[in-house]
Amino acid sequence: MNEFELIAALTSELATGEGVVVGPGDDCAVVDGDGDREILLKTDAVVEGVHFERETDSRLVGRKALARCLSDIAAMGGSPRHALITLGLPDGFDPGYLKGVYAGLNELAKAHGVSVVGGETTNNGDRLFINIALTGEVEKGRAILRSGAQVGDAVFVSGELGGSLAGHHLKFEPRLKESSWLAAEFEVHSMIDVSDGLAGDLRHIARASGVGAELLETAVPISRSAKRRARDQISSKPPLLAALTDGEDFELLFTIVAAEAVNLLDGWQREFPDVKLSCVGKIVEGDGLRIKDRTGIRELTVEGFTHFAKN
Amino acid sequence: MNEFELIAALTSELATGEGVVVGPGDDCAVVDGDGDREILLKTDAVVEGVHFERETDSRLVGRKALARCLSDIAAMGGSPRHALITLGLPDGFDPGYLKGVYAGLNELAKAHGVSVVGGETTNNGDRLFINIALTGEVEKGRAILRSGAQVGDAVFVSGELGGSLAGHHLKFEPRLKESSWLAAEFEVHSMIDVSDGLAGDLRHIARASGVGAELLETAVPISRSAKRRARDQISSKPPLLAALTDGEDFELLFTIVAAEAVNLLDGWQREFPDVKLSCVGKIVEGDGLRIKDRTGIRELTVEGFTHFAKN
Repeated sequence: MNEFELIAALTSELATGEGVVVGPGDDCAVVDGDGDREILLKTDAVVEGVHFERETDSRLVGRKALARCLSDIAAMGGSPRHALITLGLPDGFDPGYLKGVYAGLNELAKAHGVSVVGGETTNNGDRLFINIALTGEVEKGRAILRSGAQVGDAVFVSGELGGSLAGHHLKFEPRLKESSWLAAEFEVHSMIDVSDGLAGDLRHIARASGVGAELLETAVPISRSAKRRARDQISSKPPLLAALTDGEDFELLFTIVAAEAVNLLDGWQREFPDVKLSCVGKIVEGDGLRIKDRTGIRELTVEGFTHFAKN
Repeated sequence: MNEFELIAALTSELATGEGVVVGPGDDCAVVDGDGDREILLKTDAVVEGVHFERETDSRLVGRKALARCLSDIAAMGGSPRHALITLGLPDGFDPGYLKGVYAGLNELAKAHGVSVVGGETTNNGDRLFINIALTGEVEKGRAILRSGAQVGDAVFVSGELGGSLAGHHLKFEPRLKESSWLAAEFEVHSMIDVSDGLAGDLRHIARASGVGAELLETAVPISRSAKRRARDQISSKPPLLAALTDGEDFELLFTIVAAEAVNLLDGWQREFPDVKLSCVGKIVEGDGLRIKDRTGIRELTVEGFTHFAKN
């Protein structure tokens, strides 16, 4: 049992009670509000040596810590409200670095109307640990879950994928505007933010919804930086593999009834001319993930990725 | 500038906006709810090597992580609702230890009607880092702040102080029942939980309220374990000093109008016969902290604590 299987097993036995609309397992938890809204709750951490390095620009580190949580609020179709910061400081930390962290975080908070209402500071030995707790809100019953995908849905993804290692993971724009527009204009059946790679996150949707999914290889939007990395660095992943499996793209991955696909693409292009939207596949009966290329359709298992190895 | 002064400076410039009733600086943040309630938000972490050791019973570690946050909700006169857990796991962590952490946390959550609605797991190098984000609720306008103390108030503290190092910090009962009763039956002017020692936390109240405070030395409830430690370990603090300055007592420290003091003591004893309540002093004009003993009244500055050194 690896650490994630263990956590999954442990979280299946957590204390729960009244007022919990959606518990562990989606991008955010959903709990009851008083009136016509529900409250979204999210917590997430970035850790030195894991999500950033000591040399990383401190403003981008603070920005990233909050941006990751904002992306999860977007993935529920919600709006962010209040944030709390927990800092685990390394021994002999640099005050200037910390100022940068706060500055980057604050700037992004202001841009999205988030109030930073408090936090806690402690020591963490040899590395900086930044935890963000974020609340959001959504109209009652309108949170978009991973579990709502239906057979026949078209699968869409925003932006371009595979660029995280080239710096996107520090500079991405959480897709809050896009998500709000989607939630208002369309009946989005399911949504997630792409944090584990397109393949991994589409699998999360499929599993939660009890369906299968089929990707169209030629439709996967591969970022220029993934292509460049593959060309320049012999050791890097082929670009399609990067787009399917690199984490931290933080794009929106969602499904809507196929009949609305053209309306959606039209409307999106008018609203967000600078943000790509791609229809990358469809929801099918059964389970698991398949990919269709010139040679046919095959299962996209974890082992299956070896297919994309350079040749 | 030390790290806490730095954080204080940084948090004075945080992004804020509509719907924030109380921002950084109290035991919890208070934000608007929809109806006749407000929402309390708290985040806090326990870190291996700081708040517990690798040898500490894992159930008590999980329990403590949540209990600290519950104590902060109690200090606002609120009721806890939903918790999120962020785990920073050390390399090569022990799955059995983690199960214990969850078990201890879950048990306390259930005892207080808290739903654990999600969380996040990441790596943290050489030590376990557990962050809890907790929400609570309170009747609109009824959150009890640090800033409401008034000249003439009597100062009360629950329980006994100075026992944290003897194990109390792992086993304390968050004073939620007591706090709810207080909030319902009395007009509590100000409240805080004792996490920095009686002197430090009373100073927080005094400063936030723009008043001074005077402690009565003989009234400070010193725990038996603090007395025992002082007797058995030549290197430990004198018991009064432990009661005034040891952190992690997690008792309620609050002020109410002096005319209600007797009613309060009577009512408390009926409701909570097993929990001591002590009137330890009064709120006075001016600022700072003073202590009255057989020899008179003197300022209780940080330096002043040397007075209590063993002799």
